[in-house]
Amino acid sequence: MGEFELIRRYFTRPSPGAVVGVGDDCAILQTASGMQLAISTDMLVAGRHFFPDVDPYSLGHKALAVNLSDLAACGARPLAFTLALALPSADAAWLEPFSAGLWALADAHSCELIGGDTTRGPLNLCITVFGEVPGEATGRTRTYALLRSGAQAGDDVYVSGTLGEAALGLQHQLGKLKLDAPAAAACRARLERPTPRVALGLALRGIASACADVSDGLLGDLGHILERSSVGAQLDDAALLACCPWVRSGIDAQLLRDCVLNGGDDYELVFTAAPAHAAAVAAAAQASSTAVQRIGRIDALSGLRVLDGAGQVLATSSGSFDHFSQDGNSDRSNPI
Amino acid sequence: MGEFELIRRYFTRPSPGAVVGVGDDCAILQTASGMQLAISTDMLVAGRHFFPDVDPYSLGHKALAVNLSDLAACGARPLAFTLALALPSADAAWLEPFSAGLWALADAHSCELIGGDTTRGPLNLCITVFGEVPGEATGRTRTYALLRSGAQAGDDVYVSGTLGEAALGLQHQLGKLKLDAPAAAACRARLERPTPRVALGLALRGIASACADVSDGLLGDLGHILERSSVGAQLDDAALLACCPWVRSGIDAQLLRDCVLNGGDDYELVFTAAPAHAAAVAAAAQASSTAVQRIGRIDALSGLRVLDGAGQVLATSSGSFDHFSQDGNSDRSNPI
Repeated sequence: MGEFELIRRYFTRPSPGAVVGVGDDCAILQTASGMQLAISTDMLVAGRHFFPDVDPYSLGHKALAVNLSDLAACGARPLAFTLALALPSADAAWLEPFSAGLWALADAHSCELIGGDTTRGPLNLCITVFGEVPGEATGRTRTYALLRSGAQAGDDVYVSGTLGEAALGLQHQLGKLKLDAPAAAACRARLERPTPRVALGLALRGIASACADVSDGLLGDLGHILERSSVGAQLDDAALLACCPWVRSGIDAQLLRDCVLNGGDDYELVFTAAPAHAAAVAAAAQASSTAVQRIGRIDALSGLRVLDGAGQVLATSSGSFDHFSQDGNSDRSNPI
Repeated sequence: MGEFELIRRYFTRPSPGAVVGVGDDCAILQTASGMQLAISTDMLVAGRHFFPDVDPYSLGHKALAVNLSDLAACGARPLAFTLALALPSADAAWLEPFSAGLWALADAHSCELIGGDTTRGPLNLCITVFGEVPGEATGRTRTYALLRSGAQAGDDVYVSGTLGEAALGLQHQLGKLKLDAPAAAACRARLERPTPRVALGLALRGIASACADVSDGLLGDLGHILERSSVGAQLDDAALLACCPWVRSGIDAQLLRDCVLNGGDDYELVFTAAPAHAAAVAAAAQASSTAVQRIGRIDALSGLRVLDGAGQVLATSSGSFDHFSQDGNSDRSNPI
């Protein structure tokens, strides 16, 4: 199978939302009047972001999911994506399920493949995704995207879904932790097929004051919000642990806490909102069928503190996963 | 040096053309009224698209140049790009010249870095570039981008600049051909620091009927135009050879012809225009300070023929470089 046949067979479909899709030197997109384009790129490397023998269907899902998660964090509606793929060989037994996993998630979000590149090389997947957000029609400076920079002292801090499961799944796969069968299956599913919180991100536009996705670990990703917003936060340890469904399953409490606070790969949203918007947050969660948990509040004191029930500081951190300072086979998205 | 320090030091600059640039989950772009976004992605892999020991400054230049060349082929004005980078290590001695080469070309085209990703892994560069082209303001279906699909029987076929030099440079570096010092230097420069024909592409809007960039070899890339336009072409051998400045330097004629016809990496534009537009093509060439040579004409007979002075067919081809059907250490961009 040659390159053009590979593209034709696995990666060519109509893209009616684009002016020009796959097959020319460039794809052409036109945004609707008053809309702006939200753009994010993530590169996934075999042996670093995923196990080389991972199920290709899951990998196709995950490669797009981590990018859609960035759109969700901005409150952007998915439109389209490009895929650049380096492959050791053109292997139909791998490409068939990989593309099926990719298309299934793309279709679920009406996100069209509009271009890309294929080459031979060590397995590497790079997706650039495009979404739309409302903007000020009269200028380039105003956006209604959710950004990291809007958190204010007094705002509540929330996370969606569950925390720590992907990290627990990774520890289990690495043999560093033994989960029982139901926990292992659930955590592995979270690690391999994360759910981008696109509907919640859209529902939070105009409600959340700042938002990021949890790709590198909660403390690190919330740390980006604090840094960009020039504020601090205090989080409630009990509320955080309650975000992990396996809190009562006998896992060592400190390990569990570490997975919740520093585990990557959750692809949940961490966001802030004024207390006056608490009911609107609850309505957004319900409208998007996504659980949302309040975990603390923004304060003016810089830095991030996790407090136990007695008000004692349990953990402080601003360190996010860093591809060049740490080791680890894990999947984190690190936007430049 | 950690990942965030690496990004801060080498890949963070103001991007006043973007609503939101580097530093959030997504970049936000707003296109001007009546404009559409042209998008292209190219992935460059060490050992496949470039020698692993290539001068990093040149590599920074080339990684962006091959993407700008796709914008040129569409007649799009460069706006912005994202960079995803897998690196074996965070090596300042490599990152410093790499980023300098990248920024120099980006600045020359006012093309802003608005986002990206960095990770550890086998050296891999993936750039997605954004340009703007005029479109029909009232709908999504009309674009004034140069496409591959508009060539008509009777149109003239042109190429910009020179052909075959990058391929000669590669043959020389591989030790398969011995060029004299001036030719070796010129050909190596073409291989390592190609010039995207952005100004010519812009000047050809409304004049060229179809356009593509020569990344995989002239016959292959013109072949894409013929296929998408449902036409054929006949090319003039003497005019083609005259596109290579080393035609009189004693290189074997058949090798030279092969480099001109099938060599990749030239990043020139191959385009078609109605004979009535010949003066306008010449004016576009002059306005963009880019040489343009007529090499043949489009006809209704499908396929591509190269004819000598006596009208004999010398070569026919539709085969483009294919990463999965051939071997070779060469740099070709293969848009999905």
